[in-house]
Amino acid sequence: VRLSRRGRLLGEQPVNFLMEVALRRPELISLAAGFVDQESLPAGETLSAAEALLSDPAAGRAALQYGTTKGFDRLRELVLDHVAKLDRCSPADLRLGLENVLLTTGSQQLLQMLSDILIDPGDIVLVGAPDYFVYMGTLSSLGARIVGVPMDEAGLIPEALNETLAWLERTGELQRVKMLYCCSYCQNPAGVTIAEERRPQVLELLQRWGEDGPILLLEDAAYRELAYYGEPPRSIRYYDEGGSTVVLTQTFSKSFSPGLRVGYALLPAELMRPVLRLKGTHDFGSPNFNQHLMAELMLNGGYARQVQRLKEVYRTKLEAMLAALERWLGKACPEATWTRPLGGLYVWVCLPEQINTDHESELFNRCVERGVLYVPGEYCYPDELPCKERSGLGGPEHTLRLCYGVQPLERVVEGVRRFAEAVAELG
Amino acid sequence: VRLSRRGRLLGEQPVNFLMEVALRRPELISLAAGFVDQESLPAGETLSAAEALLSDPAAGRAALQYGTTKGFDRLRELVLDHVAKLDRCSPADLRLGLENVLLTTGSQQLLQMLSDILIDPGDIVLVGAPDYFVYMGTLSSLGARIVGVPMDEAGLIPEALNETLAWLERTGELQRVKMLYCCSYCQNPAGVTIAEERRPQVLELLQRWGEDGPILLLEDAAYRELAYYGEPPRSIRYYDEGGSTVVLTQTFSKSFSPGLRVGYALLPAELMRPVLRLKGTHDFGSPNFNQHLMAELMLNGGYARQVQRLKEVYRTKLEAMLAALERWLGKACPEATWTRPLGGLYVWVCLPEQINTDHESELFNRCVERGVLYVPGEYCYPDELPCKERSGLGGPEHTLRLCYGVQPLERVVEGVRRFAEAVAELG
Repeated sequence: VRLSRRGRLLGEQPVNFLMEVALRRPELISLAAGFVDQESLPAGETLSAAEALLSDPAAGRAALQYGTTKGFDRLRELVLDHVAKLDRCSPADLRLGLENVLLTTGSQQLLQMLSDILIDPGDIVLVGAPDYFVYMGTLSSLGARIVGVPMDEAGLIPEALNETLAWLERTGELQRVKMLYCCSYCQNPAGVTIAEERRPQVLELLQRWGEDGPILLLEDAAYRELAYYGEPPRSIRYYDEGGSTVVLTQTFSKSFSPGLRVGYALLPAELMRPVLRLKGTHDFGSPNFNQHLMAELMLNGGYARQVQRLKEVYRTKLEAMLAALERWLGKACPEATWTRPLGGLYVWVCLPEQINTDHESELFNRCVERGVLYVPGEYCYPDELPCKERSGLGGPEHTLRLCYGVQPLERVVEGVRRFAEAVAELG
Repeated sequence: VRLSRRGRLLGEQPVNFLMEVALRRPELISLAAGFVDQESLPAGETLSAAEALLSDPAAGRAALQYGTTKGFDRLRELVLDHVAKLDRCSPADLRLGLENVLLTTGSQQLLQMLSDILIDPGDIVLVGAPDYFVYMGTLSSLGARIVGVPMDEAGLIPEALNETLAWLERTGELQRVKMLYCCSYCQNPAGVTIAEERRPQVLELLQRWGEDGPILLLEDAAYRELAYYGEPPRSIRYYDEGGSTVVLTQTFSKSFSPGLRVGYALLPAELMRPVLRLKGTHDFGSPNFNQHLMAELMLNGGYARQVQRLKEVYRTKLEAMLAALERWLGKACPEATWTRPLGGLYVWVCLPEQINTDHESELFNRCVERGVLYVPGEYCYPDELPCKERSGLGGPEHTLRLCYGVQPLERVVEGVRRFAEAVAELG
């Protein structure tokens, strides 16, 4: 079979290697998998909503018919109000109307579609270092050049973004920069949230450096509702006064159920049209039934209740993971550091430089032998990192992601214990 | 915003014009919309399945968690058996295993993904003349050249396919032909089903003319279960002994519910890997919940019951449409002809050549005035049609599609009556 250029560019996702390891060793504690907590998945809330929806024949049939490419109007209204509420303002304050709202199959579909309509091979996308490996795979499949911008515990570093853009200007490539991708809350993989004061700074840099109009910011706020200690900062989108710099995407996958896969995005008007045209060729609308179900759940309070439950569940697990790291890794390797996220599903661990963490390393293999799996830092870094000396979160060779999402609490703790033992053996 | 090449290639779907007309005139009877019958949508069956699934907490949670990119194993097994049963054989007879089965968001997602991994701008895809306009839009967005192959009441004409391929060989473009797309049952838009004896003939031509291996056949069998008069022929896939010529795609959208949007495909092994890689960048798996729900519906008999109900509902509406055409159009315009489908949702009408049907024609405008809408034939034909003299279904200028899917029976009849009146006025 002769594949297209796109077909040939598609690589294997590196995490597939981890999935294969996990499949071969089902007894292993995977702190690699980014799945959500199993026990708290909202079967009861979903059942109530499905019963309410389907026992009204007219409403049930409307949900089972085709919808529109943009998505169910009622849910689009609800998510617009919801985002404004999270930003402690009104939709008008965000200069957003219903025409800016799109429903997608998870936020991943938006990441793919937006990238596809913007990126030609050789175009540049800036990402955090480290950043979300699935999206980096998506970018690679489009032939994008991925350039990393260093981060620290307070997220993307504006000075490092400025230096990276200056470097690209010097090399004559500034006009190839199509966007900055930023997971702005409890980032995957590092768990960090970009600090409030940095948010307008990042925007200002993108607007200043853009040659014909601002450089686009793709703000992925998938984890914003999973903040376990009070209210997190407003979105970067909130600070985008012109409304044309930021695309904001969110999802119900983490905060309710990934099995329903309902995501949503707020797009500047000039991007809505090409994204809708592309979506028309993908599926002419994400599953309508799921959108009606989520609307019911937002209206009947089931969604809000579930978010409250999840915060409690995950906070307990996050604190257990941090305590286990303190107790065992702190003893096994006093130089090790790790992030202390305000929410999300991930903790980022930085080991001393002499301890290699890659998927062929001694540490990785010892961990698998002991029955624990992590995501090596190597999967989370782009190839290009011009300002790497600014990095506050370590480099690809000696870092790793731990996820406390899917494992029950006692296995999170036991997984960290095994991991620390493996580190100790290398000491 | 500077769009990518892909972004710039994306055109407006011509049917959006029809949707706008319908939105401006809500009282209008749309025989254009390809939606399914509203009253028979299976709210009750879906409710029972949702209750069974979600009232078992473990099963409910499994459905609400992430799934895999390929889709839920149990449903993949069920659809494999289901296709074999429709082909009156076993999966082994089809030389297919679970590794060949992929679940998608409707069959449209498969059409898009398969095309994306195969087609570079300038590559050629053969389609029927007429054919499914949404897929032609997808092909255009990839920069494909779309070449039409004439059809008659018995579907794609093998001699015309042979001549088209011979013409492409003469013009030195045979090696650019990537695939033939064929909606093999109750085709959208013409309603025709490719005759049993033509199925192996088409395959043989694709295998004979392919330069390095057979030319791929994308068999879209979305309407195969909506056959209202006994068993339709076996799939073209059934005749593909090597198993590497045909990709077969089906969906539950027409036969159960488009709001659930669960489609499935049977792919040769060498295509599964690149399609999965692409799907990994689109959504890393279609909604898992919907897949679990469809598995429950296949196991509890709800799906089979619904298909039986639909056959009855649609047969009645099809027969009413044909009778109305006979009664009113036959009188208004004795030279008019139309197809007599064995199922599906569409009837194709061919008017005398002097009656133009395009979206700016007098007929179209008179129909809108009278409150009825059709899909003009112009939307259903590719630009290139080298063997057009063989066409048995008319040309783009004087044909149209009528759909009896979503309108209630009395409005189907009234719509045809209004349409015939508009034709009569032109006479």
